[in-house]
Amino acid sequence: MTTIGFIGLGIMGRPMAFNLLTAGYELVGLSRHCEVRDQLVERGARAALDVETACSDADVIITMLPDSPDVAEVVLGERGVLNSAKPGSLYIDMSTVSPDVEREIALEGRRKGIRSLDAPVSGGEKGAIDATLSIMVGGEKEDFLLAMPIFKALGSTIAHVGPNGAGQTVKAANQLIIAGAIEVLSEAIVFLQASGVEMDAAMTVLAGGLAGSRIMEAKSQAMIASQFTPGFRLDLHRKDLGIVLDAAKRAGVAVPATGLTAQLFAAAVSQGLGHQDHSALIEVLKGLSAQA
Amino acid sequence: MTTIGFIGLGIMGRPMAFNLLTAGYELVGLSRHCEVRDQLVERGARAALDVETACSDADVIITMLPDSPDVAEVVLGERGVLNSAKPGSLYIDMSTVSPDVEREIALEGRRKGIRSLDAPVSGGEKGAIDATLSIMVGGEKEDFLLAMPIFKALGSTIAHVGPNGAGQTVKAANQLIIAGAIEVLSEAIVFLQASGVEMDAAMTVLAGGLAGSRIMEAKSQAMIASQFTPGFRLDLHRKDLGIVLDAAKRAGVAVPATGLTAQLFAAAVSQGLGHQDHSALIEVLKGLSAQA
Repeated sequence: MTTIGFIGLGIMGRPMAFNLLTAGYELVGLSRHCEVRDQLVERGARAALDVETACSDADVIITMLPDSPDVAEVVLGERGVLNSAKPGSLYIDMSTVSPDVEREIALEGRRKGIRSLDAPVSGGEKGAIDATLSIMVGGEKEDFLLAMPIFKALGSTIAHVGPNGAGQTVKAANQLIIAGAIEVLSEAIVFLQASGVEMDAAMTVLAGGLAGSRIMEAKSQAMIASQFTPGFRLDLHRKDLGIVLDAAKRAGVAVPATGLTAQLFAAAVSQGLGHQDHSALIEVLKGLSAQA
Repeated sequence: MTTIGFIGLGIMGRPMAFNLLTAGYELVGLSRHCEVRDQLVERGARAALDVETACSDADVIITMLPDSPDVAEVVLGERGVLNSAKPGSLYIDMSTVSPDVEREIALEGRRKGIRSLDAPVSGGEKGAIDATLSIMVGGEKEDFLLAMPIFKALGSTIAHVGPNGAGQTVKAANQLIIAGAIEVLSEAIVFLQASGVEMDAAMTVLAGGLAGSRIMEAKSQAMIASQFTPGFRLDLHRKDLGIVLDAAKRAGVAVPATGLTAQLFAAAVSQGLGHQDHSALIEVLKGLSAQA
């Protein structure tokens, strides 16, 4: 029986852990919140208060944490995952962090006999609950195959995309494209609204042609109506764009439009839009064009 | 029987004129090229050598010309459409030009008893040949309804989007979104390629999620393989971005990412990519990141 240590039981991590329990895995969940620990125990899991306890029995350790420093601390720290897990165990980071952090963990893990994968996801809270996440996996192919039953309990689109760090690279590209699509759609909508066009007819004809996209399908009506309930929080997407710019710099690649878009996301956070859906970026574009 | 005067029998205009003949319209086509005039006559149309001859008999006059100055000259000039057409006739511009030009034509036409519509298209040469164009129409609703049988002979998605000029505004938004999508996809592909990711697996997982778009479906494989046979010519998209920036300025709207993208399209033309497909923009991004 495979035992999983799960660290990071937030909006995404909690439903993922529950799906693993449903799939029949033994699970030890780490949370500082006693309600979350109670929920775990109710569902037949064990609850841990520190990383060592969450890892010491586990065959597989999963982290789902907010940002690179969190992962670095929890995994590489003195009482972290790599110093607590059994040799031969498999570490899987499903957070969205820098590819560099994953490469460092893989290197350090190899020294300690712990294999590792980076496996960031897209699909949001709904995908986590419904077990329909897209999972982009970097690492050794054999480790990927070993983890496949776990990924199948969490997502529907699962791809091995390269060596350690490659999962995060593809996730970064995903966040780059989505941010750019929201920015460009924002410009188009503000322009159309300022020009006195019939918006419903315009969006229908745009969506039917080469301009069509998932972002347009999912977000344009709400953007036109200025309804920004998340969805995916704008301040988290801003954090991800920081990872993108850093990873692009390390890869020696210029991403000029993403640089601009990241600045507009930063402006959106400054304007108090961080807890809105990322499509609230349109409010920054509207503000640039507000007529006096 | 409706007689149509057709001015601008280029790559787009010629198959459109042929589709109107197939639908049973009488047609007078204007071309400076004798082979094109011969083709028209072969198919039962009449051929004209000047605007006056193309218009004098026509109930409907259609132009399909390269740019704003061409339309302004052909329509507003001394021996142009508005001075040659019968009062009560309908003028339809299907070129991609500035919304402002269309508003000026509508105003001037009204003085002379000639109604007008702007009806730019998307779908390219293939859409023109197959009569599957998307047609975005600005002007009076009753004129739109009058022209509907003509539009149905040319396209499959037909929408009335507002007053005169609104068709060009929506077309401008279409070109803005597509240019932005190509730019952002270019950045993502260059970044992924520089990062040693398995491209097929990466693009599959990206296309399956919120990052998916028609541009990604249609262009990413060719962009990865550096195959840029048009499609839609990059220098024409650059011209369209000039219209977008001008229209946005007149609407009082800032479009910062489109401004940047237009500069990169200009760089692509300078680098000799103007006659390639617009997705050849990726070569500019690659050049920015070429490793010494």
